Amino acid sequence: MVSDIFQTPARAKRIVISIDAMGGDHGPAAIVAGLSVAAAKNPATDFLLHGPAATLKPLVARSAHAARITVVDAERVVAMDDKPSQVMRNGKGTSMWSTIEAVRDAQADIAVSCGNTGALMAVSMLRLRKLAGVNRPAIACLWPSRNVQGFNIMLDVGADIRADADDLRQYAMMGASYARNGLALNRPRVGLLNVGTEDHKGRAELHTADEQISQAAGRGGFEYVGFVEGGDIPGDTVDVIVTDGFTGNVALKTGEGTASLVGDFLREAFRATPLSRVAAVLAMASLRRLNKRIDPRRVNGGVFLGLNGTVIKSHGSADATGVAAAIRLAVTLAENGFTERLAARVATPDTSGQDAAQGDGENGAD
Amino acid sequence: MVSDIFQTPARAKRIVISIDAMGGDHGPAAIVAGLSVAAAKNPATDFLLHGPAATLKPLVARSAHAARITVVDAERVVAMDDKPSQVMRNGKGTSMWSTIEAVRDAQADIAVSCGNTGALMAVSMLRLRKLAGVNRPAIACLWPSRNVQGFNIMLDVGADIRADADDLRQYAMMGASYARNGLALNRPRVGLLNVGTEDHKGRAELHTADEQISQAAGRGGFEYVGFVEGGDIPGDTVDVIVTDGFTGNVALKTGEGTASLVGDFLREAFRATPLSRVAAVLAMASLRRLNKRIDPRRVNGGVFLGLNGTVIKSHGSADATGVAAAIRLAVTLAENGFTERLAARVATPDTSGQDAAQGDGENGAD
Repeated sequence: MVSDIFQTPARAKRIVISIDAMGGDHGPAAIVAGLSVAAAKNPATDFLLHGPAATLKPLVARSAHAARITVVDAERVVAMDDKPSQVMRNGKGTSMWSTIEAVRDAQADIAVSCGNTGALMAVSMLRLRKLAGVNRPAIACLWPSRNVQGFNIMLDVGADIRADADDLRQYAMMGASYARNGLALNRPRVGLLNVGTEDHKGRAELHTADEQISQAAGRGGFEYVGFVEGGDIPGDTVDVIVTDGFTGNVALKTGEGTASLVGDFLREAFRATPLSRVAAVLAMASLRRLNKRIDPRRVNGGVFLGLNGTVIKSHGSADATGVAAAIRLAVTLAENGFTERLAARVATPDTSGQDAAQGDGENGAD
Repeated sequence: MVSDIFQTPARAKRIVISIDAMGGDHGPAAIVAGLSVAAAKNPATDFLLHGPAATLKPLVARSAHAARITVVDAERVVAMDDKPSQVMRNGKGTSMWSTIEAVRDAQADIAVSCGNTGALMAVSMLRLRKLAGVNRPAIACLWPSRNVQGFNIMLDVGADIRADADDLRQYAMMGASYARNGLALNRPRVGLLNVGTEDHKGRAELHTADEQISQAAGRGGFEYVGFVEGGDIPGDTVDVIVTDGFTGNVALKTGEGTASLVGDFLREAFRATPLSRVAAVLAMASLRRLNKRIDPRRVNGGVFLGLNGTVIKSHGSADATGVAAAIRLAVTLAENGFTERLAARVATPDTSGQDAAQGDGENGAD
């Protein structure tokens, strides 16, 4: 089904991203438009595009980068309200399944899908399987922040509502690896989300996790800053925020909702009077820059961590700009060999001495 | 110590607010300034002001409302880093203790303090005791929202990191009562915070709580809308958001941090170019209105619910405007007889038929 790709002799050197064309709110045209934007910026990358060939081929034919896009025919589509359990049983032949399968079969480096998060995680778990040493995979998101890199990483934001101390330690390792390879931070600062920074605050498992993460910092190539609070998520004291998927999901949606509320109030303020409408025109360039800094489309892409293969979940509502951002994140991670580096980091949880002796200890080399 | 107040013959009809003058970041002068603003707007209210008399009397003497302010001498002050357990053992004689004691002794209707949250809750629990029928008291906050009343209520935001299903049901009852008496909503809509609105999502205790809150809605005089997500906290689909104190505290601080980040980016955008600086001047009136809608000082005041007496925790960093907002919230709640109405609501958790038969069922009368 996806054998076309092997006809490209440059396969060994070129990056291949596997993209689910279906499942986004704006349909496959928005996906192909975003793909074309990303393709223009990443000439050394090829793409597998999964979905009904009859729908996709005419769309791809109009792209300036059609030669680098291989359509993989998959007739069926996972709907937003399909239950994960149904998709696990009956999902073969869907564009989502086919997208993940290409990573499993090593025909692509990283997968990108706008589809239903629960179904995408279920299919990813089923086909890619968990990395050795990982108990619970996590979803990591990017968050606009005061840091120089412009973003922080938070995980888990919804793969699993539970996380024990050992899971949180693994999240710290995985999040640090993502920060190095996705945000180019040599030695990311990792914090554990709590209701206060004092040692005695918070749930018992957080105190155990606090100790475990502290001990893992050397091997994980990160700096552990201890407990952080909700206000630090958009702040500049930490690069990676570790939490369970329940708390992380609530925090993510609360932050998005609050930013959206302030943005709407701001638009209302500019429409309020003739003077303010003139002001809006004068300030347009500056406001566009502001908008870009906090535009959720720029940080589009929740990354599934802890599987034998990396999968990026794009927002269902992503337009071409959002899809392009998710694909470019995939290219960046693939270029850095992220999947293999992450696997190497989490593979040896109980051999920190040996790991450090191999020169992989304090230097943040992954 | 606080016997002066009994010399006011109008005590039976007048509202008295008990205020801790110490413990705020800006010192007692900011508290007295805020008190004067609130006193001007609430002529039927008297005030007890607790702290070192030698410090407070000169400040009060300069207020236009000095005649309605009784200084209660309390030499000692609870520091921001005092442990709650220390304050419980040794707190007698502090301004915080004295402030709560005035409510306990029925010399004041409601207490307001800017001090250390943990210590304030500990002293409040110790001296006021939990209401019959309440297992865990909660802290409720106001949150800027798209609703017509301009705010939503969320609880618990940090009294206790745990909450079982029965606690969450009590939070729903208490939050609804606060919404009626604090926001004048006759029949508030209550939602339970979760990671999705589908029935199968979230932790087991949330499903039990979902059923219990649904059953309590009639007696509690509220409409139960079911599960809500983080994005609904600033939204218009719900008035009261119920959650455990860990999740609520993270959400509150994440929302505050995000709003502050967007505000700072906005200020930077207006300073960016000469044109944008002109625009800032033209849009000033509109931007001031915007600022007012999201100004955290306007929603200053976490309310402790579930005790024999109502205590309002003002932000430690509150200036005169913030202190005035917290005091005015106290006056509104006192005017509505909130403490007694809340107690009546939670007193009879297992007699809903009887309660409804008394005409206290569907009408939201408290």
